[in-house]
Amino acid sequence: MRNIDAQTITPAFLQRIAGCGDPRLKQVLGALVTHLHDFAREVQLTEAEWMAGIEFLTTTGQKCSGTRQEFILLSDVLGLSMLLVAQHHDKPAGCTEATVFGPFHTDDAPHLPDGADLRGGAPGTPLDVAIEVRSLDGRALADAEVDVWEADADGFYDVQHADLDHRRARGVLRTDAEGRARFTALLPTPYPVPTDGPVGQVLVACGRHPWRPAHLHFLIRAAGHETLVTHIFREGSDYLDSDVVFGVRSSLVAEMPEVAPGRHQLRQTFVLNPVMAGATP
Amino acid sequence: MRNIDAQTITPAFLQRIAGCGDPRLKQVLGALVTHLHDFAREVQLTEAEWMAGIEFLTTTGQKCSGTRQEFILLSDVLGLSMLLVAQHHDKPAGCTEATVFGPFHTDDAPHLPDGADLRGGAPGTPLDVAIEVRSLDGRALADAEVDVWEADADGFYDVQHADLDHRRARGVLRTDAEGRARFTALLPTPYPVPTDGPVGQVLVACGRHPWRPAHLHFLIRAAGHETLVTHIFREGSDYLDSDVVFGVRSSLVAEMPEVAPGRHQLRQTFVLNPVMAGATP
Repeated sequence: MRNIDAQTITPAFLQRIAGCGDPRLKQVLGALVTHLHDFAREVQLTEAEWMAGIEFLTTTGQKCSGTRQEFILLSDVLGLSMLLVAQHHDKPAGCTEATVFGPFHTDDAPHLPDGADLRGGAPGTPLDVAIEVRSLDGRALADAEVDVWEADADGFYDVQHADLDHRRARGVLRTDAEGRARFTALLPTPYPVPTDGPVGQVLVACGRHPWRPAHLHFLIRAAGHETLVTHIFREGSDYLDSDVVFGVRSSLVAEMPEVAPGRHQLRQTFVLNPVMAGATP
Repeated sequence: MRNIDAQTITPAFLQRIAGCGDPRLKQVLGALVTHLHDFAREVQLTEAEWMAGIEFLTTTGQKCSGTRQEFILLSDVLGLSMLLVAQHHDKPAGCTEATVFGPFHTDDAPHLPDGADLRGGAPGTPLDVAIEVRSLDGRALADAEVDVWEADADGFYDVQHADLDHRRARGVLRTDAEGRARFTALLPTPYPVPTDGPVGQVLVACGRHPWRPAHLHFLIRAAGHETLVTHIFREGSDYLDSDVVFGVRSSLVAEMPEVAPGRHQLRQTFVLNPVMAGATP
């Protein structure tokens, strides 16, 4: 295997992994590298562009931290995240649709009692939220875990405030016997994804805006059901038709009316997809 | 642009960058994302695999430092680097062929006088090297910059020794009026690319060996000529037919005979490609 040229490199690579003991890895890596090579040939990628790519990937990796995942942001703005969501969450009609996970979930959100105020001092207009979690057949799902997170009125998640020493505008609740949970959150507002990193630079270079329409994130787990990762978007928000991460689904857009001066309300039912016995939840 | 599915995401992305003011960026990014989406659909990439990919890229970025470029190593072992070399260095017959740059070049190698010993205390058998740098028409190229680097007999470049406070087994020389330069280096030996990082884990998972055949790196710059990035491989070395980075070209394999007990020799002529007036060197 000497004197490999721009064409023979691809079969040479595939031959090199022919002995891989993991058939799925062989399939995925073989397809990935074939597409990578095809891409480089198709656009006649230059070495300067390749080096720019190496530097971009390096900077992106080094921008990641315990509270920031720049590669997930990259996947989001390139549409890969939404592609995967669409590919794997083709649920029965009647189930709540999924959308992208995003880079700002944390595993250490405070566990809060029903009725809690999860704002924790974050700036914004209060939003009284009342949700119901149900199975596809309509029965209430008690003791479901409801993980909520959102940006504040300044457009930042708590983890984006370097000087903040506690979590806020996020929390984990449990549904009651009727599948309900209530909490006070923030009326969501549109915000830009972070543009101070390499992914933001790509958006600028492409002439793309970095904005997401107003939304709250939900991650809902209930026994015997597929975990739901989704948002609820605010009806009337800017950017509903040009979400930078391609995540808007019409069924996830909800009214959040002002029910008292300076106080808004959201009522939302989530319908989870039951997992058949023996399947992986 | 709502309710995007696993197919419509690709045209949606292309539409989103339609206004990009840089036509080349639009072309490259459009092709890259199209291939990325095609890949994800073709293998029905799962979300767990996607997350493994996010973590792999993150770890790879965070493994990079001033003296280690794990993404270049990744490009090398996936054959992308050699593809680009082959794609862009289709030089006239008679010119020395190029091969991969590799991740271990540094910009701070010592500048050494003709006849210098560049080993700097690195372990290994001495190799007396005498090179000539010529243009395609045969004329000697005086004052060409010859940047040489290699691994030591333990299989490590200087930058891989965390406790080493100086550069060794690398150096920059200039050719004399006859286009010649002489120096003492190390007889190269095969060595594995670093396997203590994420790229090494992929090699292991694929059942691939991490070895490169014995070689010295050369980067040669001469006025009016295309810069040459290449290796000279040692004839008879193991792994000449299974170089982990696909870099071996028959024309770059040279004898390095033992000319005195424990002392080897390499004589090598490099022929550089003249750049036409007005072209970018």
